[in-house]
Amino acid sequence: MSIDNFSSYADCFNEISQNVRKITLNKSILENNYTIKKDDSPVTIYDIEAENYIRKYIENNFPSHNIIGEELKIIDKKSEYTWIIDPIDGTKSFMSGRPLWGTMIGILKKNKPIIGMVDFPELDQLWIGHNDQLILNGNDCHFVEKENITLNNAIFASTAPELFEFLNLQKINAIINKVRINIWSGDCHNYILLAQGKIDLVIEENLNSWDILPLIPILKSRKIAITDWSGSEISFDFKTQKKFKVIAACKRNLLNEVIQLLN
Amino acid sequence: MSIDNFSSYADCFNEISQNVRKITLNKSILENNYTIKKDDSPVTIYDIEAENYIRKYIENNFPSHNIIGEELKIIDKKSEYTWIIDPIDGTKSFMSGRPLWGTMIGILKKNKPIIGMVDFPELDQLWIGHNDQLILNGNDCHFVEKENITLNNAIFASTAPELFEFLNLQKINAIINKVRINIWSGDCHNYILLAQGKIDLVIEENLNSWDILPLIPILKSRKIAITDWSGSEISFDFKTQKKFKVIAACKRNLLNEVIQLLN
Repeated sequence: MSIDNFSSYADCFNEISQNVRKITLNKSILENNYTIKKDDSPVTIYDIEAENYIRKYIENNFPSHNIIGEELKIIDKKSEYTWIIDPIDGTKSFMSGRPLWGTMIGILKKNKPIIGMVDFPELDQLWIGHNDQLILNGNDCHFVEKENITLNNAIFASTAPELFEFLNLQKINAIINKVRINIWSGDCHNYILLAQGKIDLVIEENLNSWDILPLIPILKSRKIAITDWSGSEISFDFKTQKKFKVIAACKRNLLNEVIQLLN
Repeated sequence: MSIDNFSSYADCFNEISQNVRKITLNKSILENNYTIKKDDSPVTIYDIEAENYIRKYIENNFPSHNIIGEELKIIDKKSEYTWIIDPIDGTKSFMSGRPLWGTMIGILKKNKPIIGMVDFPELDQLWIGHNDQLILNGNDCHFVEKENITLNNAIFASTAPELFEFLNLQKINAIINKVRINIWSGDCHNYILLAQGKIDLVIEENLNSWDILPLIPILKSRKIAITDWSGSEISFDFKTQKKFKVIAACKRNLLNEVIQLLN
């Protein structure tokens, strides 16, 4: 995919996110239209409606591409391109009025994420990442890098203690005892703070492919180190759709420090 | 304090919050100017600078009033009016770039909070509560009330599991197992979501007077039920400055349900 194509994909993300905002920002607090999924997480009518719109957009504009989304069935057209959709990442924040939820879309080429977007409607922030470019609301972002970050001066974020397996939570608590600051909640917003240099470390367990793959081009554009808990690259397999244990850190040395503590 | 005085106090809150924003929004992510306090919580130079400005404003405009603030010494002039200041509630969010931290100021008359403000600079939301009036950015707010909220369909929020004593966290976990949704983090922002009817229940332990008293006029303006864990009114004692265990719930029946589970 050439950089010319990238700008047309960025235009698509702009158009999609504007239309999805019309759906998601329409939420009434009196509505109770949600169900609990097999994995015990909630899904609202807005998740479904947003994903339906995004799929229709992709099918109209890129009819040969594959589609994976959180709420609906895989469409496998044997293309080398796959769109991966999380219509509302942070559904609990969305349902609670906390403005940190986001709409995420990634494009994979031969199972590698090459472009990713996260849109935060309530914060009016559309982030797009591709190669070494990170774009916020149409403008290139440049951040000064922090130096000398190790575990004992790091700011650590993770979505919820309940999302870790029991024995792993003990390891996470040991990490919390070492860091400078830890903060719960946040979902995809934590990774955007990491890309901006505002936090230093995110560790998560049990992430689905749509929870993490759209973020990877954004993180890589900022040279954030991201691997699974064993230090291997996050690798996507269309068939198995396995869950991910993720470490994302502002520096490789910090990531290595964490791998040692988790294994 | 008459309602005429209220509008002049609201003008003061407007002026104060605009000037405090100039201090707090000036934060550079590369700065590391913070210390850890006796209670293990962080304080930044911005907390101190903001509180200094607010105290100077009060001393210039209300020289006879008492002042209590999170970061500096009590000023006791034996007035029946006391200003209570939390320059940055949610310092961990502030340090991490999460936009949910707020500046809180309350005015107590004979130890009862009668006016309260919370300003969220990054969300551009200044909330002021007094009697049955809740004002957002200068406009009266009206919300439709939700009906039939009990524990099993409630949205529950609390700042962090680490803030509860060990045995109390077990009770909180039992509550989490009963509610529809639970969400960590949030500090003062959770109470504003409660006032808006977006979440239903907040439970906290180890709150200081400045963490909760400025919120009480805001919550009472929306008829939110708020007591300590034994069901007693949150009562402030200038001398003892004791810590609070707080339950705030959208409905009295929900609060009663929680009191039973906590005792």
